[in-house]
Amino acid sequence: MKNKVKAECRMLTLRKTARFLKKHDNYIILTHASPDGDTLGSAYALYYGLKEIGKTACVICPDIIPKKYDYFARSTDHVAGAGATVVAVDVADTKLLGALKDEFSGIVDLNIDHHISNMRYAKNLYLDADASSTAELIYELLIQMKVNINDTTARALYTGIATDTGCFKYSNVNAKTHLITAELYEYDLNAAEINRKMFDTKSHALIELEKMVLDTAEFHFDNRCMLLTVTAEMQEKTGCSGTELEGIAVISRSVEGVEAGITIKQTDDNEYKVSLRTYPPLDASLICKKLGGGGHKGAAGASVVGTIEDVKAKVLTAVKEVMEEADAGSDTSK
Amino acid sequence: MKNKVKAECRMLTLRKTARFLKKHDNYIILTHASPDGDTLGSAYALYYGLKEIGKTACVICPDIIPKKYDYFARSTDHVAGAGATVVAVDVADTKLLGALKDEFSGIVDLNIDHHISNMRYAKNLYLDADASSTAELIYELLIQMKVNINDTTARALYTGIATDTGCFKYSNVNAKTHLITAELYEYDLNAAEINRKMFDTKSHALIELEKMVLDTAEFHFDNRCMLLTVTAEMQEKTGCSGTELEGIAVISRSVEGVEAGITIKQTDDNEYKVSLRTYPPLDASLICKKLGGGGHKGAAGASVVGTIEDVKAKVLTAVKEVMEEADAGSDTSK
Repeated sequence: MKNKVKAECRMLTLRKTARFLKKHDNYIILTHASPDGDTLGSAYALYYGLKEIGKTACVICPDIIPKKYDYFARSTDHVAGAGATVVAVDVADTKLLGALKDEFSGIVDLNIDHHISNMRYAKNLYLDADASSTAELIYELLIQMKVNINDTTARALYTGIATDTGCFKYSNVNAKTHLITAELYEYDLNAAEINRKMFDTKSHALIELEKMVLDTAEFHFDNRCMLLTVTAEMQEKTGCSGTELEGIAVISRSVEGVEAGITIKQTDDNEYKVSLRTYPPLDASLICKKLGGGGHKGAAGASVVGTIEDVKAKVLTAVKEVMEEADAGSDTSK
Repeated sequence: MKNKVKAECRMLTLRKTARFLKKHDNYIILTHASPDGDTLGSAYALYYGLKEIGKTACVICPDIIPKKYDYFARSTDHVAGAGATVVAVDVADTKLLGALKDEFSGIVDLNIDHHISNMRYAKNLYLDADASSTAELIYELLIQMKVNINDTTARALYTGIATDTGCFKYSNVNAKTHLITAELYEYDLNAAEINRKMFDTKSHALIELEKMVLDTAEFHFDNRCMLLTVTAEMQEKTGCSGTELEGIAVISRSVEGVEAGITIKQTDDNEYKVSLRTYPPLDASLICKKLGGGGHKGAAGASVVGTIEDVKAKVLTAVKEVMEEADAGSDTSK
């Protein structure tokens, strides 16, 4: 099985990936659906880099690119599908190609990614799971290719790194992340303005929704667990939905003493999306597995069917079980 | 006048400051009142550095040190006042020494600071207003002194830099900030845990207060201005006060399109503290000057007496005036 995967998906080194990019032409660069700063920053930095060395290239995103990225994301030329070189950046799984899945999933020539969960679907893969972001890898590729980096490219790269590290806050940051960022400061970056857009700007609708959601806050298990509810009514009333709601899950873990933050978002009459954020030693993926979902240690999710009371009870039971296991595990007297 | 200032306060270079620190002994290191991560991180990093080279030293803070800093801030030895070398770190003005002002304001031997507004009250001053934080300067001093940096010192320095840069978000960050931080990652930093404590943890009481405050939100001047009110009743009801309320002012500027965020906090029956946060080209200090206060371009404050309606009207008038001046200034057709 291992050999089969190897035969299908060739693992490239940094140097080989740079050589691949220099050798081919007519690039179609794909981002993942519900695009974030890393997939977009990586795609556009690669696009500008390839244009610099005379290649034909375009960026295709499965969804509309949010306006806030317009300081680096612009509409690009069209590249004909026939004979094109297809590169997917920050796309760990073909499922994440969304609306582009059917057209492209079987024909990705190169995949550049930093997710350890990468599904190895492309013909060639440059994967570095130690990198904070795919943008970090694109920076190293551009340096390896000796491509000129301009101010816009630097802004795109900075956006990718800042997005995936929560502006240098998370545990995926290391010395290299800061060294690369120091290099990017040599350009006209205007990082403070980028960070303001990415991290410190909320829509009126979101502020309104956050107020409603905070009113639903419940605390369980000696305040070690906070539970927030986002009903369909709240989403309708405020017009807030989709990626705008991502910040809510972060709030659920931001209260002193809370180890498990649960957000239950209504997606249909009797259907709820559960988002879980935990701090060590609690493993969010273990909890969500019990609910038929999955994810990472610190962030996981699941879709649960039932009334809101059913869903709450199911989630709280799962949290309690894993919490008790974690407590028992850390009890050194046993 | 310039000569007089020079005669009273000797400006030191990095090298001379390092020499000063190596030459003297029996250090009393002072932080500013309402201590934050930069004054504490700087004081303790300097303390650990001086201990490493065999000096006697202690840290004195005018207020109780918040518990969240206990990963580097520990109780230190006592140093007798007579014959002591007094060093104030991150203290721009003797007023900021709070309860220690009377005892120490005339006898500060060395002041290490990064505030351009520094009042030059000490006998010797090492000032670098381009540095993101005083902690950045302490790092450079320890390197210059060839002092061994340990994990706790690195954590203290990281805390100082992260605090004053909003975790690398603000415009005071430059390439050097990231280069120094990369060096700190060579130690057992646990930066993600530090950042969680510093930036992502709110008390239950604060969450409660934020909900109440968001309910008071008013928008003015085509939504370019947001006004939040914190009444004495809210503070009593939640038990939230003092430095815990600092985050509220940040919220006031976080809404899309808002250029001026106003927070009006009741301090007495007919007295209110106005906190203002603005984005360029609006100058918060100009607005607060009209109210008898002052501050920086992006953040300023004033105390205003009157009923809440009076205070709101005064503040909004001042904002409107400065907003109109800024609009006229940016109108290139004139």
